[in-house]
Amino acid sequence: MTKHDADLDELRDRLGDRLLTGDEAMAPYTRDASRAVPDGAPIAVVRAESTADVSAALSWAHAANIPVSVRGAGTGLAGGANAYRGGLVLSLERMNRVLDVDVANRLAVVQPGLVTAQLDARCREHGLFFPPDPASARICTVGGNIATNAGGLRCVAHGVTADSVAALEVVLADGRVMRTGARTRKNVVGYDLTRLFIGSEGTLGVITEATVRLKPVPEGRPRTFRASFASVEDAGRAVTAIVNGPTPPEVLELMDALSVEIIEAYFPTGLETPTGAMLVGQTVGPDAAARAEAITRVCAEHGADDTGVSDTDALLEARRRSNPALNARGLKISCDVGVPIAALADVFRGVAGISARHGLRVSTVAHAGDGNLHCTVEAEGSPAGIAAADRVIDDITRLALALGGTISGEHGVGSLKLHELPWQQDAVALEVQRAIKAALDPLGILTPGRAV
Amino acid sequence: MTKHDADLDELRDRLGDRLLTGDEAMAPYTRDASRAVPDGAPIAVVRAESTADVSAALSWAHAANIPVSVRGAGTGLAGGANAYRGGLVLSLERMNRVLDVDVANRLAVVQPGLVTAQLDARCREHGLFFPPDPASARICTVGGNIATNAGGLRCVAHGVTADSVAALEVVLADGRVMRTGARTRKNVVGYDLTRLFIGSEGTLGVITEATVRLKPVPEGRPRTFRASFASVEDAGRAVTAIVNGPTPPEVLELMDALSVEIIEAYFPTGLETPTGAMLVGQTVGPDAAARAEAITRVCAEHGADDTGVSDTDALLEARRRSNPALNARGLKISCDVGVPIAALADVFRGVAGISARHGLRVSTVAHAGDGNLHCTVEAEGSPAGIAAADRVIDDITRLALALGGTISGEHGVGSLKLHELPWQQDAVALEVQRAIKAALDPLGILTPGRAV
Repeated sequence: MTKHDADLDELRDRLGDRLLTGDEAMAPYTRDASRAVPDGAPIAVVRAESTADVSAALSWAHAANIPVSVRGAGTGLAGGANAYRGGLVLSLERMNRVLDVDVANRLAVVQPGLVTAQLDARCREHGLFFPPDPASARICTVGGNIATNAGGLRCVAHGVTADSVAALEVVLADGRVMRTGARTRKNVVGYDLTRLFIGSEGTLGVITEATVRLKPVPEGRPRTFRASFASVEDAGRAVTAIVNGPTPPEVLELMDALSVEIIEAYFPTGLETPTGAMLVGQTVGPDAAARAEAITRVCAEHGADDTGVSDTDALLEARRRSNPALNARGLKISCDVGVPIAALADVFRGVAGISARHGLRVSTVAHAGDGNLHCTVEAEGSPAGIAAADRVIDDITRLALALGGTISGEHGVGSLKLHELPWQQDAVALEVQRAIKAALDPLGILTPGRAV
Repeated sequence: MTKHDADLDELRDRLGDRLLTGDEAMAPYTRDASRAVPDGAPIAVVRAESTADVSAALSWAHAANIPVSVRGAGTGLAGGANAYRGGLVLSLERMNRVLDVDVANRLAVVQPGLVTAQLDARCREHGLFFPPDPASARICTVGGNIATNAGGLRCVAHGVTADSVAALEVVLADGRVMRTGARTRKNVVGYDLTRLFIGSEGTLGVITEATVRLKPVPEGRPRTFRASFASVEDAGRAVTAIVNGPTPPEVLELMDALSVEIIEAYFPTGLETPTGAMLVGQTVGPDAAARAEAITRVCAEHGADDTGVSDTDALLEARRRSNPALNARGLKISCDVGVPIAALADVFRGVAGISARHGLRVSTVAHAGDGNLHCTVEAEGSPAGIAAADRVIDDITRLALALGGTISGEHGVGSLKLHELPWQQDAVALEVQRAIKAALDPLGILTPGRAV
């Protein structure tokens, strides 16, 4: 019996069957939805049911100096939730309750393991909705959204997850429990710890409760619009014009020709492949139809050869399925870059050039209204094929940075993008982040070696 | 010649006449606009003209282990910018340029000493505006707004200053220069250092450049609405209904009867004193008039006995002058509490009770749409009178907290509210903030003993 095995008995005494061991039982908890491969088997999985469970698990791991990975539903795309060899996995899937919906203040208090779409559904019973809307909303969790500051389809209208979080309960690396934020609209007391933990990818603390901001469901039926372009660059220019125009939409997505083909092959809905790219989006509110028509006119002015408005959202459903459709084709080597909104045409032209130069096909879906692109390289599964695809991703990432962009718009850095960090951030910014990490987690047990 | 005097010659060699000494020359740089009294004369004032100047000043202060206070226009209301005895004052008033207005991406790059209203005016030349709008916009600076995460009149529609900041250049305590954030709409790379520095009140670094987000100027002429209520509680209930209604306004302010009297005495505009309180606000956009009328109907439903809509903003001007009007009466002992929006009627009832119990008159102006109240106690200038007024403020602050609120909605903690910090934040949250402060400024030279 090793020292760790002995230690583990203490934790088992505390947690009972909320502690899982054995490779088979632990297997579903060892990796996220990315291609990043865990470096070995963990020693145990804690399926926490309360803040006290999380605190006990972290106190134990801290005393034993064991690395901890944290997970909600494991839908992450950057390797951030993968298990560590000999580490502890902390799963929050059982902490999935809505603790309060405060209609008059438009707030909800939730546990981190709640599935995002379930929160949204609960709010809609009260005429409110939860603005964050990642494409994976039906399977991902609110805690994971907050830990990665997830984006999604409605960001163009409502901002990122961080913009919908008012307050948190967090368990620190050594098991101490703290609260951040307030239930008010304005609060300037001390440092913005809420924002510090949001998007910190499990490296600073574990979120055990969140107070989130809600908005009223717009009146009337939403409308879905579409516009097909012969050129993806024209589609990019149309997006810049729409976003800067008088009727910004609720959703504004782009799928290039190859991605439409891939989605249609996997989820056939009769989607017609454009020559260059297709924009799809949604408008809401009492004048949703007029807004959608106005947007299609802007598209036509920018060269769209086919446009339409409908009151069903089959096209958005297709867009939501791009990730499973791409996954179904095997290894997915992709990026999550962002560019300023006026650089969209430039980045699409550049991606086409990079694809041609490397002789590898690239499909692109984009939260176009946010300037956030997911480009996926068609790669052979061999080590050489993967390396070739990675070089394409590196070139696209450097292009985005050259255009004033970011290496990650919404998926986070995790382990997959760690090498890109110094491309975007200066040495002092990296030092400051490491100093903060060391101040809050001196032993470095929380999601070590990732995100910063 | 003391050691510090000797050191100072080094800095003078570097900065020339950008270094001020002598009590008379330094006097305008020693305190902010609050009642907090500096603890003694500084040894020098640096009027920085560049990031290099700021870096040189901080490197020098760090090497000499001298406390540094940082200031823009000195309009702060919490004592955060007051000089330290024997300390260095770092003034950013000369770094006041607009470096870029990027219309297509709706961004501006500015220096910290730029007056907020001047930034807004520059943006309006391009059909854009800078959303933050503190009542002091014509005299305060963008850097000060960011350092305190300032609020203001338009927060109800556009959020606080932080919501309009995309990226920063910051000089750390030891003179190192770093950049945070990105020019994109989404960016989840590493910790949110931008938000960490925003509202940190000069304790973590000095902001030397900011990339801020702009919005398009709404079409049409704004409308100003007003509604007088016999009861301030009714006015509070009306605000809750308006904010949660279908036509939220751009501005929604409250002045109680006593504050209207005080403002009218100082800036006579014919403002009629309400029995209880007056709401004033603004609507914008092509349907501004209809929105304003709809809001006055909500007010009437909640008991307003006199309402009106106009296309001039004299009433908002009056509201903007509440602070100078209160200052003109002498010592101002006031608070900046916030409550959740549904608690407005409760907090107004509670403030009336506290005023009656202490036998001291309290005037209240509020960014009502944000739940943010500034209550000012009529105090005698004697030590006993000040202590009595402080007890009223303490009671109001504890009331706000009991209602789920905050000790500061927009002015910050500074030195005046330091004793209230543990009323709102738990011990672990305070420890975490001190750990971050120590990680970034180990010698504690930046605005020591304030904010956290």
